[in-house]
Amino acid sequence: MKNPTAAMLVIGDEILSGRTRDANMHYLAGELTEVGITLAEVRIVSDQRDAIISAVRALAAAYDTVFTSGGIGPTHDDITADCMAAAFSQSIDVRSDARAILQAHYEKAGTDLNEARLRMARIPADAKLIENPVSAAPGFIIENVHVMAGVPSVFKAMVASVLPTLTGGSPLISKTLTVHRGEGDIAGPLGALAEAYPGLSMGSYPFQRDGKYGANIVVRGQDVALLDEAMTKLSEAFA
Amino acid sequence: MKNPTAAMLVIGDEILSGRTRDANMHYLAGELTEVGITLAEVRIVSDQRDAIISAVRALAAAYDTVFTSGGIGPTHDDITADCMAAAFSQSIDVRSDARAILQAHYEKAGTDLNEARLRMARIPADAKLIENPVSAAPGFIIENVHVMAGVPSVFKAMVASVLPTLTGGSPLISKTLTVHRGEGDIAGPLGALAEAYPGLSMGSYPFQRDGKYGANIVVRGQDVALLDEAMTKLSEAFA
Repeated sequence: MKNPTAAMLVIGDEILSGRTRDANMHYLAGELTEVGITLAEVRIVSDQRDAIISAVRALAAAYDTVFTSGGIGPTHDDITADCMAAAFSQSIDVRSDARAILQAHYEKAGTDLNEARLRMARIPADAKLIENPVSAAPGFIIENVHVMAGVPSVFKAMVASVLPTLTGGSPLISKTLTVHRGEGDIAGPLGALAEAYPGLSMGSYPFQRDGKYGANIVVRGQDVALLDEAMTKLSEAFA
Repeated sequence: MKNPTAAMLVIGDEILSGRTRDANMHYLAGELTEVGITLAEVRIVSDQRDAIISAVRALAAAYDTVFTSGGIGPTHDDITADCMAAAFSQSIDVRSDARAILQAHYEKAGTDLNEARLRMARIPADAKLIENPVSAAPGFIIENVHVMAGVPSVFKAMVASVLPTLTGGSPLISKTLTVHRGEGDIAGPLGALAEAYPGLSMGSYPFQRDGKYGANIVVRGQDVALLDEAMTKLSEAFA
């Protein structure tokens, strides 16, 4: 059986400018692999309305589930919620359920729920809220898209809220053999083994360390016995 | 004048599986920003022929320049060169100019130019070679797409070969003010300033540190005097 597929949309001027190095994508990739959901594509777009809308539409149509990160805070450059409503032709306004969550949170903290903070209660009409145990302001699910925060601690907490609700597949197991030879020497035997095991995926990821070439050969699959057998043959081939 | 736009296509099963954290995108983003080329979109796709071909076509049509990383080595899972030829309807075979580069390199090293290594001389018919001072096997330029290696040291060297050939724009200058307040308190005054300076872009990137909220306010633009003026007003607003 094929595993469910997922895509991620990162809304991130700060990543495209090179100011920040993405952390959320790497985290989500690892979490999805563990529950057997295949992360098939990631797109990073700038904080531009048209770019966000067309990317989320394309990804939502192509994959089972989409995750977004970024752009749901209180400042003027946070336009993700409005873009999601537009992408799926829903109305958007301050919603009473989201407002109640914020009100309770800020009352407890003795902080004013001002106009800016209230923007975080703007949720598309038919969306379902995603709990945010870190800073209260919720994410939301619209169609098959999970809209989450960009701050890594909040993103992680939202992923934890959401993952148990998703149907996973067979976890993809991967084993790695590090070979201290150039890929040009590895390629022949590796290609033959990859052909002999069509049920597994074999990738070669070259590296250069202390001026010497090597490669991590990563074998992925869902059948542990088959994986072990292939790893034994690989080890023999490169002993 | 608008700066030229660029996109990046990362061919990377190992990034989508969460095994490796991308380094090339972050590096390229910084280099492009410095020369005034706007990195507008990044896509990460798996080592699948259809996914690579449709992504590179879409990006090449939408942006001035495209950079790819990954999938041009000698192993069976390296399919980028063939995909690029297919995407732009060019034939592909071992090319004598690329073969000569490899031959010279491996002769010097006393290494056999075997069938696997010769795969790295497979270059689309009308492509222009990109020099690889690290490990010889060249990248190439096909239409407006720069096809480069995934190994970070080689990717960097190829970027260095390619950047001087590109027409840049006015370097985007950015200044950052770190404010130790919640974004909900920052949003109002920041939004007003952003409206007052339509020639600059102002972004707020929240963080949580030691349990306290704050935000980096990043102002970007090409006019240094205007930038300085806005930074002074920002500092006053959040003093």
